[in-house]
Amino acid sequence: MGKGITSRAEDYSKWYNELVERADLAEHSAVRGCMVIKPYGYAIWEKMQQQLDKMFKETGHSNAYFPLFVPKSLFEAEEKNAEGFAKECAVVTHYRLKNDEEKPGKLKVDEKARLEEELVVRPTSEAIIWNTYKGWIQSYRDLPILVNQWANVVRWEMRTRLFLRTAEFLWQEGHTAHATESEAIDETKKILDVYATFAEEFMGMPVVKGVKSENERFAGAIETYCIEALMQDGKALQAGTSHFLGQNFAKAFDVKFTAQDGKQDYVWASSWGVSTRLMGALIMTHSDDQGLVLPPKLAPFQVVMVPIYKGEEQRNTVVEHLSEIKKELESKGVSVKLDDRDTHKPGWKFAEYELKGVPLRIAMGMRDIEKGTVEVARRDTMEKKFYDKHDLPNKVTHLLENIQDNLYRKAVDFREEKTATANTYDEFKTLIKSGGFVHAHWDGTAETEDKIKEETKATIRCIPLDQKAEEGKCIYSGAPSKGKVIFAKAY
Amino acid sequence: MGKGITSRAEDYSKWYNELVERADLAEHSAVRGCMVIKPYGYAIWEKMQQQLDKMFKETGHSNAYFPLFVPKSLFEAEEKNAEGFAKECAVVTHYRLKNDEEKPGKLKVDEKARLEEELVVRPTSEAIIWNTYKGWIQSYRDLPILVNQWANVVRWEMRTRLFLRTAEFLWQEGHTAHATESEAIDETKKILDVYATFAEEFMGMPVVKGVKSENERFAGAIETYCIEALMQDGKALQAGTSHFLGQNFAKAFDVKFTAQDGKQDYVWASSWGVSTRLMGALIMTHSDDQGLVLPPKLAPFQVVMVPIYKGEEQRNTVVEHLSEIKKELESKGVSVKLDDRDTHKPGWKFAEYELKGVPLRIAMGMRDIEKGTVEVARRDTMEKKFYDKHDLPNKVTHLLENIQDNLYRKAVDFREEKTATANTYDEFKTLIKSGGFVHAHWDGTAETEDKIKEETKATIRCIPLDQKAEEGKCIYSGAPSKGKVIFAKAY
Repeated sequence: MGKGITSRAEDYSKWYNELVERADLAEHSAVRGCMVIKPYGYAIWEKMQQQLDKMFKETGHSNAYFPLFVPKSLFEAEEKNAEGFAKECAVVTHYRLKNDEEKPGKLKVDEKARLEEELVVRPTSEAIIWNTYKGWIQSYRDLPILVNQWANVVRWEMRTRLFLRTAEFLWQEGHTAHATESEAIDETKKILDVYATFAEEFMGMPVVKGVKSENERFAGAIETYCIEALMQDGKALQAGTSHFLGQNFAKAFDVKFTAQDGKQDYVWASSWGVSTRLMGALIMTHSDDQGLVLPPKLAPFQVVMVPIYKGEEQRNTVVEHLSEIKKELESKGVSVKLDDRDTHKPGWKFAEYELKGVPLRIAMGMRDIEKGTVEVARRDTMEKKFYDKHDLPNKVTHLLENIQDNLYRKAVDFREEKTATANTYDEFKTLIKSGGFVHAHWDGTAETEDKIKEETKATIRCIPLDQKAEEGKCIYSGAPSKGKVIFAKAY
Repeated sequence: MGKGITSRAEDYSKWYNELVERADLAEHSAVRGCMVIKPYGYAIWEKMQQQLDKMFKETGHSNAYFPLFVPKSLFEAEEKNAEGFAKECAVVTHYRLKNDEEKPGKLKVDEKARLEEELVVRPTSEAIIWNTYKGWIQSYRDLPILVNQWANVVRWEMRTRLFLRTAEFLWQEGHTAHATESEAIDETKKILDVYATFAEEFMGMPVVKGVKSENERFAGAIETYCIEALMQDGKALQAGTSHFLGQNFAKAFDVKFTAQDGKQDYVWASSWGVSTRLMGALIMTHSDDQGLVLPPKLAPFQVVMVPIYKGEEQRNTVVEHLSEIKKELESKGVSVKLDDRDTHKPGWKFAEYELKGVPLRIAMGMRDIEKGTVEVARRDTMEKKFYDKHDLPNKVTHLLENIQDNLYRKAVDFREEKTATANTYDEFKTLIKSGGFVHAHWDGTAETEDKIKEETKATIRCIPLDQKAEEGKCIYSGAPSKGKVIFAKAY
């Protein structure tokens, strides 16, 4: 274990990096910008996946799998999309290595095995999928198509950070096809609601639902809906996006259908995704200077048990008692890890599981057995209490619910505190400097947004869906505005 | 739907291709050698994944994720492994596209964005993983590491077939690290047992457990264990492999640990995998000229319900009755799809679900409601029977078990029929020509194996783990042999 991690106040960015590595979530790999997701981190991601997958299926979606590679000519077809991603594409040009005659034991690219057409490693899959949908769709009977894929994608980022921005990341991408515009828009919004529900009820992370300004819109979309969260350092994080693509991809790939009335039309589309970036959001919403803090619904194990003993005989007795309690808890649907390793001391284990954010810790020694009690420590508040052994299953389920609620409420309170309204540009600059969401009137132009970004590093996070209609003047240009939008510095 | 598919007798290979596409399992993509796994096919793969993942976790393994790319210099480190895969590697050489000035709207590779070191798209992950393990392992306390990854891999195949041999495929790859040789060997065998149990109890596919000859061994392994199945056309299919890697990768990546007694040693390793190839094995074990036949344990839905009606009123009545039965069945753990679409006729639906291999079909019309009966059709035997509505939940669970058993037994019987022993090379050639497993004495040399392959296309599928020790003479060379091995032509 060694010593603690850097405090958030001292250096938030350093705190984040140390936490991710020390809590065994992820680490940098030998490949520039690519991470290794370690078993403990991956177990959290699996919990996220399972829940999201369940929600997608409950809303009528099925999973499928499309190729990793996109031939360059397909990639080019939707021009805006291609332009948006061209600068960060990993490109496969050859399909063979051969022995390097000059360096025995070494390999080199076989120039004879150059591909006729280069393959782009997918940065997103609209192109390959819409090229496939062309073969699936003839009539309105073939619609809607409601498909999702869990996959890896690659975007060559120059400045990377574990989970937040990596060259390769894991995500899900939904790609749906519809007979009407309104159905496609409904789908786009439905998924935004799924994302918001997941963020709030499972991650314990409050989000604002909104639409992106043109500057921040997905390349190739008509409208990008998003959920935006606020991190502890006052920076915003885009946690999920759902795009209404109109007929852009249908036109690029010539995907038409015959409607019930016999007329032909291009198909309407949506696409939507969340990624391993959510891991970073989860960390930066709840964790503290002692390490990770996990909401019970996403913790790989919700309770860790640490036996306190001297000698083999005591150990057997305590572990036996704990094993019984473990079974009882598991029968209530609580996930439990009993750490009965003799190679590590209880103090080491306490610190380790604090660092790893396990919601509840149960400790038990010989004295507890005599008294019929156990010590329970909450990770979120660090409170410790003794409970009667027989009450324990009910107490634990209650505590876990309480922790889940408490984390969400704390995050909501924090966001409220860090949300303000600016009526002048001076006010705006001061507020942005101190971090948080800043509501302000904007004239609706990309030029103004660009200038504000240049001068303050703040961008428009979204035009909130619950925006109040009110006449006002843009804080920057003074031009008329019909409602406030949300600005922040962002990850 | 249109007409049926080619019969197996007419052209087995054509039957397979048509079945895979027509049953909506997979199709060829725009990328050479890469497939699209369609929702229905992917749902079967998900069932396989869920069960295997459960079995891996029950045997102490955790999932993690490692990069898609392997820098060439790491890839080279274990020379045999590198040599084995070098000829089929997709290689990333650039990380950016740019506008093609000569062709407006088109993109080209930006030559200024050439990577200093090429990246290989992982054909398998030993190299990147052992390079990572180096940082994870110092002492015996860090061992064992029992990690699995679900991932896509790329091997540039020149002749591809859906599921059986594709340039990109999905798989799981386990990579474990151990303090002792015997522990690593035990792990290798334990996983072989997991694979065999999965194949037999879930896929309903009997397998022979064995070890590979040197010719067929995984590049970089000391010993490759495998499970081998026999397909309906008499060809063998390698369904899973588990490799004892010795200290090869630990030496290549300098991964040492300090043992309890303070001595340093290289770490011992295993790796093991099964892939979407299992989809091909499943298809070719059970399916028939009417289409796919699925074992109930892996069917996306085990029962399909088709209402028979005339007019809207009847439709509502029948669908209401079926919905009730559906709930009852689901409460018993049976997965059910009620196809109440009015856009397709019952006859079309019958053919469609036959083609898709749904284990049981329930049909119900007004007359059935009057009589209190339903018609149930088994996909495996095509038998139809009427059952009393009230008996149905028990009958259905019983029938599903019966189908699962029946498919396995039929496959075992088929394999028995197609397994023979050759005592002379002439006998051998005749037997190989007619397909199936052929047990024969072999002198243990790669030369003999090569020559037999050249002359008959048969390879040694495995040296079975339950091989009887018996003195004999190699059918080819006449040299002494200590037991029979299994030959076959293979996928």
